[in-house]
Amino acid sequence: MTHAKDPFFRIEHDLLGDREIPADAYWGIHTLRAVENFPISGQTLQTAPELVIALAAIKQAAALANHELGLLGKERVDAIVAACREIRAGSLHDQFVVDLIQGGAGTSTNMNANEVIANRALEILKKSRGDYSCLHPNEHVNLGQSTNDVYPTALKVAALTAIKRLLGAMASLRCAFDAKALEFADVLKMGRTQLQDAVPMTLGQEFGTYALMLAEDESRLSEASLLLLEINLGGTAIGTGICTHPDYAECVRRQLAEITGLEVATAPNLIEATQDCGSFVQLSGVLKRVAVKLSKTCNDLRLLSSGPRAGFNEINLPAKQAGSSIMPGKVNPVIPEVVNQVAYEVIGNDLTITMAAEAGQLQLNAFEPIIFYSLNRSLVHLTAACRTLENNCIVGITANRDHLRYIVENSIGVVTALNTHLGYEVATQIAMEAHSTGRGVYDLVLEKKLMSVDQLERVLLPENLIGIKTATRDAEKFVHSASMN
Amino acid sequence: MTHAKDPFFRIEHDLLGDREIPADAYWGIHTLRAVENFPISGQTLQTAPELVIALAAIKQAAALANHELGLLGKERVDAIVAACREIRAGSLHDQFVVDLIQGGAGTSTNMNANEVIANRALEILKKSRGDYSCLHPNEHVNLGQSTNDVYPTALKVAALTAIKRLLGAMASLRCAFDAKALEFADVLKMGRTQLQDAVPMTLGQEFGTYALMLAEDESRLSEASLLLLEINLGGTAIGTGICTHPDYAECVRRQLAEITGLEVATAPNLIEATQDCGSFVQLSGVLKRVAVKLSKTCNDLRLLSSGPRAGFNEINLPAKQAGSSIMPGKVNPVIPEVVNQVAYEVIGNDLTITMAAEAGQLQLNAFEPIIFYSLNRSLVHLTAACRTLENNCIVGITANRDHLRYIVENSIGVVTALNTHLGYEVATQIAMEAHSTGRGVYDLVLEKKLMSVDQLERVLLPENLIGIKTATRDAEKFVHSASMN
Amino acid sequence: MTHAKDPFFRIEHDLLGDREIPADAYWGIHTLRAVENFPISGQTLQTAPELVIALAAIKQAAALANHELGLLGKERVDAIVAACREIRAGSLHDQFVVDLIQGGAGTSTNMNANEVIANRALEILKKSRGDYSCLHPNEHVNLGQSTNDVYPTALKVAALTAIKRLLGAMASLRCAFDAKALEFADVLKMGRTQLQDAVPMTLGQEFGTYALMLAEDESRLSEASLLLLEINLGGTAIGTGICTHPDYAECVRRQLAEITGLEVATAPNLIEATQDCGSFVQLSGVLKRVAVKLSKTCNDLRLLSSGPRAGFNEINLPAKQAGSSIMPGKVNPVIPEVVNQVAYEVIGNDLTITMAAEAGQLQLNAFEPIIFYSLNRSLVHLTAACRTLENNCIVGITANRDHLRYIVENSIGVVTALNTHLGYEVATQIAMEAHSTGRGVYDLVLEKKLMSVDQLERVLLPENLIGIKTATRDAEKFVHSASMN
Amino acid sequence: MTHAKDPFFRIEHDLLGDREIPADAYWGIHTLRAVENFPISGQTLQTAPELVIALAAIKQAAALANHELGLLGKERVDAIVAACREIRAGSLHDQFVVDLIQGGAGTSTNMNANEVIANRALEILKKSRGDYSCLHPNEHVNLGQSTNDVYPTALKVAALTAIKRLLGAMASLRCAFDAKALEFADVLKMGRTQLQDAVPMTLGQEFGTYALMLAEDESRLSEASLLLLEINLGGTAIGTGICTHPDYAECVRRQLAEITGLEVATAPNLIEATQDCGSFVQLSGVLKRVAVKLSKTCNDLRLLSSGPRAGFNEINLPAKQAGSSIMPGKVNPVIPEVVNQVAYEVIGNDLTITMAAEAGQLQLNAFEPIIFYSLNRSLVHLTAACRTLENNCIVGITANRDHLRYIVENSIGVVTALNTHLGYEVATQIAMEAHSTGRGVYDLVLEKKLMSVDQLERVLLPENLIGIKTATRDAEKFVHSASMN
Repeated sequence: MTHAKDPFFRIEHDLLGDREIPADAYWGIHTLRAVENFPISGQTLQTAPELVIALAAIKQAAALANHELGLLGKERVDAIVAACREIRAGSLHDQFVVDLIQGGAGTSTNMNANEVIANRALEILKKSRGDYSCLHPNEHVNLGQSTNDVYPTALKVAALTAIKRLLGAMASLRCAFDAKALEFADVLKMGRTQLQDAVPMTLGQEFGTYALMLAEDESRLSEASLLLLEINLGGTAIGTGICTHPDYAECVRRQLAEITGLEVATAPNLIEATQDCGSFVQLSGVLKRVAVKLSKTCNDLRLLSSGPRAGFNEINLPAKQAGSSIMPGKVNPVIPEVVNQVAYEVIGNDLTITMAAEAGQLQLNAFEPIIFYSLNRSLVHLTAACRTLENNCIVGITANRDHLRYIVENSIGVVTALNTHLGYEVATQIAMEAHSTGRGVYDLVLEKKLMSVDQLERVLLPENLIGIKTATRDAEKFVHSASMN
Repeated sequence: MTHAKDPFFRIEHDLLGDREIPADAYWGIHTLRAVENFPISGQTLQTAPELVIALAAIKQAAALANHELGLLGKERVDAIVAACREIRAGSLHDQFVVDLIQGGAGTSTNMNANEVIANRALEILKKSRGDYSCLHPNEHVNLGQSTNDVYPTALKVAALTAIKRLLGAMASLRCAFDAKALEFADVLKMGRTQLQDAVPMTLGQEFGTYALMLAEDESRLSEASLLLLEINLGGTAIGTGICTHPDYAECVRRQLAEITGLEVATAPNLIEATQDCGSFVQLSGVLKRVAVKLSKTCNDLRLLSSGPRAGFNEINLPAKQAGSSIMPGKVNPVIPEVVNQVAYEVIGNDLTITMAAEAGQLQLNAFEPIIFYSLNRSLVHLTAACRTLENNCIVGITANRDHLRYIVENSIGVVTALNTHLGYEVATQIAMEAHSTGRGVYDLVLEKKLMSVDQLERVLLPENLIGIKTATRDAEKFVHSASMN
Repeated sequence: MTHAKDPFFRIEHDLLGDREIPADAYWGIHTLRAVENFPISGQTLQTAPELVIALAAIKQAAALANHELGLLGKERVDAIVAACREIRAGSLHDQFVVDLIQGGAGTSTNMNANEVIANRALEILKKSRGDYSCLHPNEHVNLGQSTNDVYPTALKVAALTAIKRLLGAMASLRCAFDAKALEFADVLKMGRTQLQDAVPMTLGQEFGTYALMLAEDESRLSEASLLLLEINLGGTAIGTGICTHPDYAECVRRQLAEITGLEVATAPNLIEATQDCGSFVQLSGVLKRVAVKLSKTCNDLRLLSSGPRAGFNEINLPAKQAGSSIMPGKVNPVIPEVVNQVAYEVIGNDLTITMAAEAGQLQLNAFEPIIFYSLNRSLVHLTAACRTLENNCIVGITANRDHLRYIVENSIGVVTALNTHLGYEVATQIAMEAHSTGRGVYDLVLEKKLMSVDQLERVLLPENLIGIKTATRDAEKFVHSASMN
Repeated sequence: MTHAKDPFFRIEHDLLGDREIPADAYWGIHTLRAVENFPISGQTLQTAPELVIALAAIKQAAALANHELGLLGKERVDAIVAACREIRAGSLHDQFVVDLIQGGAGTSTNMNANEVIANRALEILKKSRGDYSCLHPNEHVNLGQSTNDVYPTALKVAALTAIKRLLGAMASLRCAFDAKALEFADVLKMGRTQLQDAVPMTLGQEFGTYALMLAEDESRLSEASLLLLEINLGGTAIGTGICTHPDYAECVRRQLAEITGLEVATAPNLIEATQDCGSFVQLSGVLKRVAVKLSKTCNDLRLLSSGPRAGFNEINLPAKQAGSSIMPGKVNPVIPEVVNQVAYEVIGNDLTITMAAEAGQLQLNAFEPIIFYSLNRSLVHLTAACRTLENNCIVGITANRDHLRYIVENSIGVVTALNTHLGYEVATQIAMEAHSTGRGVYDLVLEKKLMSVDQLERVLLPENLIGIKTATRDAEKFVHSASMN
């Protein structure tokens, strides 16, 4: 359909009529219309390279499958495959110009890919761009496919890549917490419940929980990612597989698995798989969980480092920048703060995804573009947040050991350890007297001759307080020292 | 339609057939079916007395309007009005037995009201319950009405009552904060930004902001409540006013205004008003704002009272109950904690309302029942939260004045006040030296002869630090003391 | 501490002083204060019987464990166990009077249980209520426990019971959908994407997807429920196990497993387990997913049954009640509507839970009460929604078979099936002509002699259109009929 | 501090030490550290030009105010003002390189502005970049300011610009709806409630509601924007105004008002204003409302245009692109679909903003960057959505007039109009018979001799059905025709 005379433009047409396309553009008329229809976010497909690469992988797999099934000749296949390989290697991404936020259930994304691949393949075949009679975006590149199976599959493949990166960042952050847990294993401090002084623990135990929370989240995220391996390629328009060879679904699945290295599986019910966004909702729900716990951890870090003189002052976050344009010398917990904000964004994104999923109607969810847009930002920003938290914060944290020990020694909370010896009611009286007089629990117990120095010291041994199971904390002694109730 | 022979049941029928109704029930067959269809939350209409009362007010207004327009005879009107008055006075609420969460856009609520009023009116007229040939739930009690104008109007009238109560609780809480602001007006303390020590202020200023935040929220809430005064009575099914007398809308509005004392106004476009949930979304958005700020305030209270020995320890919340079943003498900030939780609930309710509003289709929003269910809980729980916060917490707060003053005197943050005298870079060096050595800013400045004792003391005067505009802080002196930059 | 003289009240005391307790109350002073402090929702513990029963199970397990470890004498254990068994069997629930929405991280719930059990045990021991010197709520009933391990464990046990019930309702609803899928297996209809006519399918396929979606959600819910089996009993205040016998955690776990029949496991890290709400967030996220998909299904049902004359009119939902107080004969999709509303509520609850989880600080999440309140409502309301959807809607759905077939036969969408024969561009022209002229695709193809009658009929065979794999749709024929591209 | 020898870099230092800065960069060391600390979204300040311009306006206003108060010499003021003017005119935006998502409460944004302005001013003064002894980013550009008053004020000024643009797009879209309301004023159609056929109305009335909804939202948005006019310039660090001249707040306010043309007002309580995010929460709540209603409108448009043969088929949206890569000739409602998605995003953003606002602590909200990031996207994307909805959809909508009239004439819903003549019960029987037999209401009423042809025709006159108040629908006739009840 190229118009040979004009060096600047070629003419393409679709069901709405003819349009001029810049002669050097690999994209075509469908892409042009989409660019005009969706000038929303300014963030185009190329800003999500994983998606562009996933599209190329699927198109390559489809071409190979169609060839294997005798539906697409070798010359065309070779050209299409070559074009797809180039894109997967990073070429031509600047030709993916449609806004990520788009109507049409992803059709414009699919057509952008079809057109770029067709025109690059034509070029490889020494044909002019736009000469679709030789190789057609729909009839050849999109053969046996529909947006409704290509697009969600591409979203899943792209998300799997991004998840892998996030899992790496989480694991690395977890190791940083674990290293701190080891470093602070002997730092005694007061534990707190409801922000009130509770009972002693170690700072190492505290950091160990942050590591463990991440470990659990990594497990949940891995589990959720498995759901994304179920694809609907071969379902075409609504999952009935119209226009496909009976063996196509299995064939394209195998090709895609080989190309991507992912163990993708064809959904047992393609109609359900075509309309269902459950795996995205599940994944986003898990990312929300990750965000919630990362945010809680950062809240804790900010609390523990509050001060230096009017706060908890338990730990020091590394100074990363001047904290104030007006208050000299002020250093702020800027890294946890940015992580908190990413967490709020992820939670907001989850709501967007939830609403988009709920709004799906009948045989298709038309709102998958915003689902991917939101999911992708959650994945990318969380990855960045984990990385900066690890490198610019956790690894440089130090503890104010003396201050922490002083607080434990002067705490009222240690009275809890005397419960089994004095009973809850007597212990309560000791605690209240300590609070009102400012005196120590240790002194008051001795003064009132409720326990001997010996007894008291054994009970208040750090290893008894912080739950480290050692030989000295054996069952026999516990029963012996506790009065038979 | 009553079946005279059976003393335990009467028979009623509707388009689906006949059903036995307990002889002593004021509700009828429509209510019965709704009870069977919607066994969801167990919270029936009677648990929202404002709604029951609002329904009765509307039915009374409609009867009077229909009479005025010559559409309903005196005997029937009198009986209906008498029944409505009884309900508004608190009678028969136990007959409102449909679940608040119901399908059908509120039709079951409207029919429950129509049936109870009809049967009570029949009783007043010395007729048997169920003898609808004399006075019919639809043809007389519901005359000129549709669920689609009655139900949203009832929701608005009910909400206005609940808002008034919430505004009262907020105002009272605000006064409690103001009283504390006055009480703590001279208590100097360190202000904090990003949980790091910043510059001095007074505890009175801190509590004053909580009062002011509430005052602003009261204004926003009052504004939002005005939107609820726009009603759609007279629009009937879809706002076109089918089945109504041309003067009915104005007439029923006037009657309702008289009965309720509310300045209700008929929407200029009844079709729009019938499908629009904008005023509920707006109201819920403002309640979310109230929740956000109340939660922030309670977060602050919990922070400021953290300790007693390992926390900020600035203020003491009154002890309201033992804080722990195991830790003797522990007292927790239980009242702010419950307010936080109500806030989270209100924010969740707002989302429910948002989704329900968005899901409205064409000429009606079928999901108003969950909107009211959620809105009502937000209003009622917020009112309760404000009350317990005021009575069980704010009024009993005390300040640890000596500790607060000690912290200010030993803070590094006062160095900010020296900015205009020393410049940001020199002040930064002083701050860093104070931090690393543990020494005071005052001493370091004097030691380095950067300012005289006199200068220093004038600059560090509390009234200069905390922004109280007094004669001593006049412009001339400021310019004089600041070096011309 | 009973005050023998007064027949109406006994006196109890705690760290705040003395209070009169009604003589016949099983609850005590801690419960009284909590009732006064938290007059929020009016929904008390007894409205969540699973929680009351779970608390009794835990208290029973703890007493048995303490006895086994030699820490609690036989007489007391027997009395406590007897009291707990009664509560588990449904007695004394009316004594659980604290509001479900409460501050204090559940301490008031735990103390309400301790007091009721202690007083009932005292009664069994022929002692007076309040005679805590014989058997003390904290020292004996709560021995070795803290709210911080008892309360979250109780929430998990209670939630597991509720989940089991929900899974039952979902499975039953799924079977109803499956039965309809079978019943409608031969009903041809147009599939739709983006609300526009797409390609044919069967109504059975459509209902089959609803069944499958539920099946997948049941799997996800079962997975999420496994996370709740991890408990932190034995961790006491902050997870360090202070005040517990070294063997207590394992012993109480075994007892609880026996009593409840649940394979509960002690968390490997009790400090992490005590502060972590991840399993609740995960569960709620999955409930949100269930809600999203149930809502989507109900949206579809309402769409498909729209009409009767101005809508899709594909299926008929059973009439369950008169649909309008003003429009005679109108029947509405009231059951799907109520399910939609429950879904919106569940999604709102998930947000409440998310915020509450994120707000946890340091060694404890103080906001677990609102987490349970919200989670429990989601579970209970979803169960009710599934049940009414099944019984009052799905089982009675009928199909308008003739209308559906007529629409398929006159659709333009069948042109898609001609893609492989005519190519996308030619097929597009046919489609456009059919649309603008109102004529049929079949006629136009024949008229233009693009395919023979024979070819056309074979391609448009229903079994080829709807993806049923049969012998006639074999690979060879597909390749043969498609032109080699 | 420039290092004269190196042509590629200059050295700058801050409290953390020295760093090399590219010689040609206008930004400095604070910006460099922020870039390294916050590699989150890749969206830098320059992608929000309104924010960059607002910052320059504030810096200009502050410089002028400081000069007026005798605190800043003329040479420096002139240079600063010149630099700010350039930035406001669009220059140097590429120097605003910090990520929009950042920790530190906006300090990095403020410092980026301070550094760029200082270095450009130095250039104007013929000094080297980095020669801060002549003109210092903190001591001169930031004089009398803190991030904590500059940043929120800049957010407000930027948001006001974006709101103005959105209001313009909404007004224009509203006009397009109004034009269609006029065009379709005489197109009779069936109104629907709960997706079921209800009573007649006109398509013009339907489109009129979309216009009116927008009009109301414009009012709410305008109201909410007024709250943003309250600024806290002069409050500096925590609102106490430390380091400011007593007249500074009023002076800078006046200058800013002049520069921006906005009637900004200084908050009466600067401490409250510094920590409060209420106006952002309110604004976002209103944007959520706009989104909810725009989404509802687009849902309606998609429903009404469903088909062409298996749907409502009432209106035709203009074809904007091929709807499918596989289904020839399919055209989809892509424009409403993209608007729906933007709405879901805005609702998600509102949640992010809500959480960020709630998380503010004590004297400052550290999470304003994510608030702005989210708010700005909501404003920009909503503006784009309104524009594409207007231009690419609404203006081209056509009605299927014949089909619509046919449906009305064959509807059962018109029976409602007979309520006042036949009573609800008789009318119900007619409706049920019409539904089961497929016959028309008109015929049945005549056949049963319930009304005369004359009566029937008068009642079923379109103007009586659709609520247009005309002379023929006067009160007298209504009463006359209705039987006295």
